[in-house]
Amino acid sequence: MTRSRTYLDHNATTPLRQEARAAMLSALDLCGAPSSVHADGRAVRKVVEAARHDVADLVGALPKNVVFCASATEANNLALNLDWQRPGKPPLRRMAVSSVEHASVLSGVHPQNTELDLLPVDGNGVLDLRALEARLDAWRERGETGLVSVMLANNETGVVQPVAEIAARVREASGLFHCDAAQAAGKISFSINEIGADLLTISSHKLGGPLGAGALVLGSDGLHQPNALIRGGGQEKGLRAGTENAPALAGFGAAARAAARDLAHYGEASLALRSRLEQALRETSPDLVVFGGGARRLPNTLNFAEPGMAAETTLIALDLEGISVSSGSACSSGKVKVSHVLTAMGVAPALAGCALRVSLGRETTVQEIEFFVAAWKRLRKNLHDRRHRAA
Amino acid sequence: MTRSRTYLDHNATTPLRQEARAAMLSALDLCGAPSSVHADGRAVRKVVEAARHDVADLVGALPKNVVFCASATEANNLALNLDWQRPGKPPLRRMAVSSVEHASVLSGVHPQNTELDLLPVDGNGVLDLRALEARLDAWRERGETGLVSVMLANNETGVVQPVAEIAARVREASGLFHCDAAQAAGKISFSINEIGADLLTISSHKLGGPLGAGALVLGSDGLHQPNALIRGGGQEKGLRAGTENAPALAGFGAAARAAARDLAHYGEASLALRSRLEQALRETSPDLVVFGGGARRLPNTLNFAEPGMAAETTLIALDLEGISVSSGSACSSGKVKVSHVLTAMGVAPALAGCALRVSLGRETTVQEIEFFVAAWKRLRKNLHDRRHRAA
Repeated sequence: MTRSRTYLDHNATTPLRQEARAAMLSALDLCGAPSSVHADGRAVRKVVEAARHDVADLVGALPKNVVFCASATEANNLALNLDWQRPGKPPLRRMAVSSVEHASVLSGVHPQNTELDLLPVDGNGVLDLRALEARLDAWRERGETGLVSVMLANNETGVVQPVAEIAARVREASGLFHCDAAQAAGKISFSINEIGADLLTISSHKLGGPLGAGALVLGSDGLHQPNALIRGGGQEKGLRAGTENAPALAGFGAAARAAARDLAHYGEASLALRSRLEQALRETSPDLVVFGGGARRLPNTLNFAEPGMAAETTLIALDLEGISVSSGSACSSGKVKVSHVLTAMGVAPALAGCALRVSLGRETTVQEIEFFVAAWKRLRKNLHDRRHRAA
Repeated sequence: MTRSRTYLDHNATTPLRQEARAAMLSALDLCGAPSSVHADGRAVRKVVEAARHDVADLVGALPKNVVFCASATEANNLALNLDWQRPGKPPLRRMAVSSVEHASVLSGVHPQNTELDLLPVDGNGVLDLRALEARLDAWRERGETGLVSVMLANNETGVVQPVAEIAARVREASGLFHCDAAQAAGKISFSINEIGADLLTISSHKLGGPLGAGALVLGSDGLHQPNALIRGGGQEKGLRAGTENAPALAGFGAAARAAARDLAHYGEASLALRSRLEQALRETSPDLVVFGGGARRLPNTLNFAEPGMAAETTLIALDLEGISVSSGSACSSGKVKVSHVLTAMGVAPALAGCALRVSLGRETTVQEIEFFVAAWKRLRKNLHDRRHRAA
């Protein structure tokens, strides 16, 4: 397919990879429930288990520790429950998450957990490790421990968190560490063991796979969750009931394999384009603010603001020119509200209201970047001209 | 595609309809999150809302009352929560479900509901209305009311419940009635208003749509559930978070439209084939037991037992001959256990262990029925011959 538009909103969702599409189409021709013992069922089971291997490989996990879900949102909701049982370790009593997490973490905490500690970030959006240590110390003083959830990379700014350092501290405090890697997987290289995460969330449609698939990956065999989010037929080791969505999982597996293969090239190519974009914008505007610009970021994400250039109107004007970008988190259902991520970073509401997120994909071209820059420059000039006339 | 095998396990899952496949493929070419305000997002939103109309039409509901989920299992889990708020009506304090419900109802009840009343069925698997009335009276005496969940048609036996009568009694008791219509939708004609259900569950892959889609349909606008099962970005009126799976929903919508169109023909054709099958088996075996044979059943389902002919071995032998049938509920993850449905109907374990479920589909032919009958007769004869020799 050829795209007539310039799609620069890959952190919201990505085009389906050809490999994923082909794997889905094959699986759509099968008919059988993977739990059925007959040959039709077994053929589908084979597809599901092959996908489990591919997804496990992407994050360096054992296939048996991959729990398939319908989305990363669901995986986050499944993770954020204090009932995780860990042989020989104390029960989890407390929960702390960073203040820049995705809505599926911030709102997805199990309702039993009435007290949720929000961990602060610095001006670049990076978790304040001293605040985390203070929190863990406070738990220790009460003779308690808990679950800590910090994302690998932020969906709005691309900022990468020091998750290995965080995991080490949580481990020292006998806590459980969950890492939402939905936005990072397929964009940067990592493994669940390098991070040291007990639980890791990944998403299919963020890395070129289809919608309808995600996974909660366990760092070890010993973890057990008696209270699954979705209960019924006992699928996925009792952690997620419902007939396994073999076509979507096949697509997820194929996309994970392709993403792992392309990772180095993707990183270099995206970073080159993003740098070109950032430089062109900075050359145009001396006032440009790049959020998270002082931190390690995903290579494909640029979140910036030109003071006075309201994001909503810019976004609509760009849309009319055939360019798709985002003005905030993609999951906020079209609601116009100030980003909780930028707020947590201490960005003033007026400036946060000017934040535009440009997120590049594996098919993004230099021409598309130049097209965006030209359009943005025109909009900026028009705004300045209007202000000049009005003044 | 041509199928080399004889697939008679349509109550587990169904082949994808051509219309659904085409709708999915179109949607797979789009790229955008339906919540995004740009044109790419709006194009996907249009697909989702068109599907919502088609699914609503199948069950006579308003599109705005359709809450899309990833599966009927998820929809059942979302439904079975006493926190439903109903303007001007008493809070829900109790929960009662029939003893023949799907595992996603029996295990899917929200963990807060520690006391679950199981409603008995008669020897045909039909709900005992007097037992329901006694239960509702007991609630009334305590000044309480609750949520009652009874399926429209049973997945194992095909037995259709008197849901309109059940709904009327629940309404009189100021209760809330949920009906799991996952197995019935697309097989028999009904509407949410005819039933009088407050909540209705339907499944995509049971009616020729793709996996990864289901819906919880609300009977009225007034219902509100503050505790969604999956929380995050606020999608689906806050009742189900996560980027909407547009390709799967497009397939679900197309399948729902096709199912509605084919309903009368499907019913007649399935019933004719099922009658032929049942007659041929009865002619062969004077001892044949048809479960639910005295009740109204789905036209496509035959659950029967030949005493002494163990289901597991028969199933494996049929599988070797290229025939896929089921020995019990499809969702029990390959576990060999006596059916809770047959147990609730008072069937002895030895006989229940001989139960085979044959479920026909819209593409099932007379030849396939005859092929199955011939294979089954051979197996039966071999068994009798072996016993004769052994005696």
